[in-house]
Amino acid sequence: MNARFKNMVKLLQKLPGVGPRQAARFILALLEKDHSELRELGQAISNLKNEVRLCGECFNVSEDESCDICSDSKRDKAKLLVLEKVTDLDSIEKTGLYKGLYHVLGGAINPLDGMTPERLRFKELERRLLSLTERHRNIELIIATNPNTAGETTALYLKELFKDTLGVELTRLGRGLASGSNLEYADEITLRNALEYRK
Amino acid sequence: MNARFKNMVKLLQKLPGVGPRQAARFILALLEKDHSELRELGQAISNLKNEVRLCGECFNVSEDESCDICSDSKRDKAKLLVLEKVTDLDSIEKTGLYKGLYHVLGGAINPLDGMTPERLRFKELERRLLSLTERHRNIELIIATNPNTAGETTALYLKELFKDTLGVELTRLGRGLASGSNLEYADEITLRNALEYRK
Repeated sequence: MNARFKNMVKLLQKLPGVGPRQAARFILALLEKDHSELRELGQAISNLKNEVRLCGECFNVSEDESCDICSDSKRDKAKLLVLEKVTDLDSIEKTGLYKGLYHVLGGAINPLDGMTPERLRFKELERRLLSLTERHRNIELIIATNPNTAGETTALYLKELFKDTLGVELTRLGRGLASGSNLEYADEITLRNALEYRK
Repeated sequence: MNARFKNMVKLLQKLPGVGPRQAARFILALLEKDHSELRELGQAISNLKNEVRLCGECFNVSEDESCDICSDSKRDKAKLLVLEKVTDLDSIEKTGLYKGLYHVLGGAINPLDGMTPERLRFKELERRLLSLTERHRNIELIIATNPNTAGETTALYLKELFKDTLGVELTRLGRGLASGSNLEYADEITLRNALEYRK
């Protein structure tokens, strides 16, 4: 393998979860493309930070300082839904059912992976809640982290952090049977949640 | 998700095996990098075809028309090892044991995936063998496709293609127990091969 190829492999390994083999596969696939296609992709990556950035308030992807959701006057500013990733935000937006604001933490607490609370956007969340409570009497903080170990840890951390904050009501996304799933094959925790969250 | 972000997601999906979710993850990770790092990666992709190309003879990655191996006068030009991918070539080169030439097919025959013989470099192999047999009396064609269904199909196809070609001797890589493996857990086919290839 020649030096330039090795250098390309090293560069592509900057992408998360991409090892040397996948990087090599990427390069070989890219070599099949036209010059113009490569230039388009290359320029998009070069200019990425000018094209896309993170909203200064909620950390959603945005074209401007403030994202479409934060700058939308019709959104309910007394509701703040906290989630792990931008892709989660997109899933909730697609339902069209939620009309409040968001806060993207940037991941979930997982000390084994080096994801300590300091690396997530808790400080920014505290600051934001403070400014929201100044304008609104009651803020609903909806915890929407994932129903797995890291997500549950993060939810607990959030509860501890804000349980005594005046004017902040904590809620969590409903838990129970997933639509289209089968009672027969549901695990015990899911069934327990389904019973607990019944209405 | 805004339009520019969606556009970036679509561009990154040009990479093989990358879906919309992984593409979004790539972008969010790239947003954490410095401007200069993004520019470096972007320019490398834009200029990829000037930096790296495929050797016109063996289809290894190369900086020039002909790769380091093909243009090396010390390599044994009466040996031609046929394999699926450039990464396989690299693995064999790392052993330092093989001193002949290579031919990279670009994959293995797998009609279900649309990999028909026409999409692989058999024509180029035939042409190359013809020119090699003009200069050398006996050419050893070593089949080094992967020991899986697609690789075996490709090996059979190669055998059919060249069994009657004068001056070409077909061989295959040895088969048997992998180093570090355990006789107790070896599958039947591996054991059968180990017995058959004993020496």
